[in-house]
Amino acid sequence: MNILISSVGRRVKLVEAFRSELQKVNGKVIAVDCDSTAPALHFADVYEVVPRIDDLRYIDYLKKVCKKYKITGILSLIDPELSLLANYVEEFEKEGIYVIVSDKQIVETCFDKYSTSQILGSHGLPCIPTYINIEEVICDLTVGKLEFPLIIKPRKGSASIGINKVYTMEELLIYKNETEELVIQPFVNGQEYGVDCYIDIFSRKPVNMFMKKKIMMRAGETDKSISVRDNDLKQLIERLVYVLNPLGPIDIDCFLTKGGFVISEINPRFGGGYLHAHLQGQNFVKNIINNLSGVTNQLQNNEYEEDLIMVKYEDVKLIKNVLPQASEVSL
Amino acid sequence: MNILISSVGRRVKLVEAFRSELQKVNGKVIAVDCDSTAPALHFADVYEVVPRIDDLRYIDYLKKVCKKYKITGILSLIDPELSLLANYVEEFEKEGIYVIVSDKQIVETCFDKYSTSQILGSHGLPCIPTYINIEEVICDLTVGKLEFPLIIKPRKGSASIGINKVYTMEELLIYKNETEELVIQPFVNGQEYGVDCYIDIFSRKPVNMFMKKKIMMRAGETDKSISVRDNDLKQLIERLVYVLNPLGPIDIDCFLTKGGFVISEINPRFGGGYLHAHLQGQNFVKNIINNLSGVTNQLQNNEYEEDLIMVKYEDVKLIKNVLPQASEVSL
Repeated sequence: MNILISSVGRRVKLVEAFRSELQKVNGKVIAVDCDSTAPALHFADVYEVVPRIDDLRYIDYLKKVCKKYKITGILSLIDPELSLLANYVEEFEKEGIYVIVSDKQIVETCFDKYSTSQILGSHGLPCIPTYINIEEVICDLTVGKLEFPLIIKPRKGSASIGINKVYTMEELLIYKNETEELVIQPFVNGQEYGVDCYIDIFSRKPVNMFMKKKIMMRAGETDKSISVRDNDLKQLIERLVYVLNPLGPIDIDCFLTKGGFVISEINPRFGGGYLHAHLQGQNFVKNIINNLSGVTNQLQNNEYEEDLIMVKYEDVKLIKNVLPQASEVSL
Repeated sequence: MNILISSVGRRVKLVEAFRSELQKVNGKVIAVDCDSTAPALHFADVYEVVPRIDDLRYIDYLKKVCKKYKITGILSLIDPELSLLANYVEEFEKEGIYVIVSDKQIVETCFDKYSTSQILGSHGLPCIPTYINIEEVICDLTVGKLEFPLIIKPRKGSASIGINKVYTMEELLIYKNETEELVIQPFVNGQEYGVDCYIDIFSRKPVNMFMKKKIMMRAGETDKSISVRDNDLKQLIERLVYVLNPLGPIDIDCFLTKGGFVISEINPRFGGGYLHAHLQGQNFVKNIINNLSGVTNQLQNNEYEEDLIMVKYEDVKLIKNVLPQASEVSL
């Protein structure tokens, strides 16, 4: 069995985890990215440089790569590509290739912070109040339903890019004419948690649920985290999964506030902090291989040690003779 | 021979390089940091958790650690500690411990962006015009000696924290009353280069000079770089070293502008991108061991291949049973 991972970027350790698990079943991991210097490309069994995901030829390239390497399953590591791939699930399936992605509607809801809060709110799930209308914000500030500081961020952003904290009405009004692609939220003062889940593709049940406190962030990613088990959080995530019905690996961010846990973000893919779960034996990679082999995964919840700290650090690699960019070659 | 590296933080690969070189001479690397979860601690032969460098007990702790592990040489990886250690060079030397740090005056000049530009300018070395007086900025804008956009940043900052780009006089005037700890510079539009040098402690000559173009930055650090050789840049750095007279590892940032290379920053320590030089055989770690053994290093300039790309990526480690914080123990 060969698996293709697209938009691999810097996620070397995840690609290595796939490589190591696939070796056990005589399979290979094929990595693709539009940038020939993406570090993770150079740790796969094979790599190909493809066009950017917004290039019209992208899906055709992907199909050709799948054919060339007899791919059984595809998964992507970045949000914008989830939406794209969700459109082509059936087309790929016709060729015997399974795309590990949640339904298009789920993927698009999760990518949009406003839609996320709307769907959570409509199902009574605790979430951060999220505004797209500045008049509503002003109104709620006036009646005391909302307080400064506020957080303004892109509706569809990631990696903590473009996040601004706003302390006064004057500062808020600067955004008056540019709120279309922004959301406004109260600043939440609470311990942040991350939960990595694997939703079995056949049973649609969360067979793994790994909970961690985030103890240090860096460039929008969790730099240090500590494993925890919390029954309230577990129940909240189970309710969320029941409502959302996603599949495969999924990563959920939460805050613990005075009023309990609130959900702040959902990423229906491998989260940047997944490796903590993996190092503690929550092997989603093996789950994927099982599912692609037609095997249903059994419940593995909470079978991990608490209070283990995961730290991230930088490693380096020298690369030469990179493959040319996709625009210069034809497959 | 045992070497102590302080404030090791995330610099796992550098600690590993020391460990590997010291093994060859039956030596050990002892790492210290105030944070018991600093990743690099957990890759040294031995680690100790020490107070913060601004704690009055810090130097005493360091001395005790040196005694405990029979340390021959100390070096630090962060700027604020260089100044501190430079004050205690003689005290450590009395106990037979060599502190690898440039003279106090050099260290303080380099840590202060305004002083850096003053010393470079006074020796006719090309640098970025740097202001601490907003009236002077306005004056030079008026007479056309300076143009928007401008960059405003902390005089003594690092890791790209607190850097703001300013496009208009209105925005500039916001900083009118808070310029004391800030510098104002024109925005330089040019390819950025980094140079890693090793200045031999005995000959005071740059025995290594590794030049690289920075091709991608992330959180203030070079994420991807490509090795180059450039004679103009080499000559500029030689003039700089002659003027400054630093010692040990040193890292210099430059921009290539229409008018040639200009120096933007000098770090008299191992730079964050040093590993590129190391991977291409410019082994400053071995140089340090030679120097600490009383051996003078020979010139090794320019003996490396061009166009090799170094990429950084994240690795992870699970840690448990960390040593308690220094405040809780006595050595």
